[in-house]
Amino acid sequence: MNRSDFKFKVEVRVRNFEVDWQGIVHNAIYLHYFETGRIEYLKRVGVMVDMNSIRQNSKVVLVRNEVNYKVPARFDQLLNVYSRVSVIRNSSFLFEGLIEDSLQGHLIADNLAYHVWLDPENDSPVNVPEHFRIKVREFEGSGVQITGPF
Amino acid sequence: MNRSDFKFKVEVRVRNFEVDWQGIVHNAIYLHYFETGRIEYLKRVGVMVDMNSIRQNSKVVLVRNEVNYKVPARFDQLLNVYSRVSVIRNSSFLFEGLIEDSLQGHLIADNLAYHVWLDPENDSPVNVPEHFRIKVREFEGSGVQITGPF
Amino acid sequence: MNRSDFKFKVEVRVRNFEVDWQGIVHNAIYLHYFETGRIEYLKRVGVMVDMNSIRQNSKVVLVRNEVNYKVPARFDQLLNVYSRVSVIRNSSFLFEGLIEDSLQGHLIADNLAYHVWLDPENDSPVNVPEHFRIKVREFEGSGVQITGPF
Amino acid sequence: MNRSDFKFKVEVRVRNFEVDWQGIVHNAIYLHYFETGRIEYLKRVGVMVDMNSIRQNSKVVLVRNEVNYKVPARFDQLLNVYSRVSVIRNSSFLFEGLIEDSLQGHLIADNLAYHVWLDPENDSPVNVPEHFRIKVREFEGSGVQITGPF
Repeated sequence: MNRSDFKFKVEVRVRNFEVDWQGIVHNAIYLHYFETGRIEYLKRVGVMVDMNSIRQNSKVVLVRNEVNYKVPARFDQLLNVYSRVSVIRNSSFLFEGLIEDSLQGHLIADNLAYHVWLDPENDSPVNVPEHFRIKVREFEGSGVQITGPF
Repeated sequence: MNRSDFKFKVEVRVRNFEVDWQGIVHNAIYLHYFETGRIEYLKRVGVMVDMNSIRQNSKVVLVRNEVNYKVPARFDQLLNVYSRVSVIRNSSFLFEGLIEDSLQGHLIADNLAYHVWLDPENDSPVNVPEHFRIKVREFEGSGVQITGPF
Repeated sequence: MNRSDFKFKVEVRVRNFEVDWQGIVHNAIYLHYFETGRIEYLKRVGVMVDMNSIRQNSKVVLVRNEVNYKVPARFDQLLNVYSRVSVIRNSSFLFEGLIEDSLQGHLIADNLAYHVWLDPENDSPVNVPEHFRIKVREFEGSGVQITGPF
Repeated sequence: MNRSDFKFKVEVRVRNFEVDWQGIVHNAIYLHYFETGRIEYLKRVGVMVDMNSIRQNSKVVLVRNEVNYKVPARFDQLLNVYSRVSVIRNSSFLFEGLIEDSLQGHLIADNLAYHVWLDPENDSPVNVPEHFRIKVREFEGSGVQITGPF
């Protein structure tokens, strides 16, 4: 995973209640940071999947998370959280995430988050909607690998 | 608030991710413990307000929390969480909570949690339902003070 | 509690993992928002109590929280979190917090958080340090009520 | 990952504040469940790494988490969380975790959590201590694969 592949970032500051008794950010909190990045990315790209759309006609689920922890983040540290959709297949897509220290630029953690699009009625996989493919392609250009119906 | 007034308790064990960098349970986590107590109390009394009932014809909101922190709880400590409905009025009711160390019995924290019953359509207060009054009276006897329509 | 009494605010955006199954911010999360406000306030005023100082020669504990929940905050909402130290006594001080919607300005929740200064060796109350009194006075002016040794 | 490989489990009940606005347990919460399992496993095996030991002469860090989400867990569901150390190498070890519904036995999620043992002074890898190898071997028997100095 390469920082230069990312076109989008948000900043988050480490809060005291996110730090455990070792003085470092707890391992589950990084999932919050990556998810914050994904939400803001989706808003920016214009495909935000909000609560109403999910309840009504669309449902996206996270099926696999991989997180590598490189250097622990600490209280009050300012972090850059980079996000991008790197792969879209028939009914699934992959979000990559990367967190670095915003001042010195060293890597804190990275993440692969695999998502699947489901029919909310019966939970069977459905094609990733065309508007999602189009919007991500517009934003990422050739940086996103798209296979399946397009 | 008096421990002898409570007829219901649950046990919770302090988890490592609930402890902050001072080595003590974070102040917001006690709200989790008290809420766990309330949920189990409602199940025990037989008036559990679940997700479906809330979405359909009933809505209870928490309008005020008071928490006193006496002695900090620490990692792996086993706690007794006591819960009771102590007051029911027209459209509101009061939950009391008390947490003590389960081995030595010293007080950890206490809580007053004020709830209001709302019409889910327009968010205006409605009477606390009769089955709630009856079930709490059955469980608490004269320990619960009930005013309003009954 | 009056918004015009506050000289300091931070903005927070409601994250999806802070919203419960009722679609509103969970009651414990507001304690995170208020604490984020307090930390940033202390940094701004110049009396930040960091992890090292606490472990070495100083210890501040939260002994009581009062929270009033007015209007539930929702996913992606931008909030203004106002903070101020309103009272300093011999060994204690009071933090007030107020959260409003940043666009329409309606009140979301308010908070009184009572703190006590302790000797980290024996947990007995000690005087609020003079530099804390001075820095808060400099920032708040006559807005903070100070009693005790000054 | 096979349930029959596990000799240790704990039960956890899904709490309402762990459920998100989709009505299912939030993806970061499963890391809490797996960690609760690991802590209880370490206590059971007799190699608990507590806060004091970590601060003084020992430090274990999580370097990689893999989580597969199979079927979402829901409010009030009772879960079996299985844990085991499956591999110990020179300075690292692998924790496997598996969560299933406690009544119907279907798989909820699984986890691989890679840990490294560090010198707390300089954060360089050190050998996994002998007492850790011995205690895990005693508990797991041939179920744990041990390489490196033993």
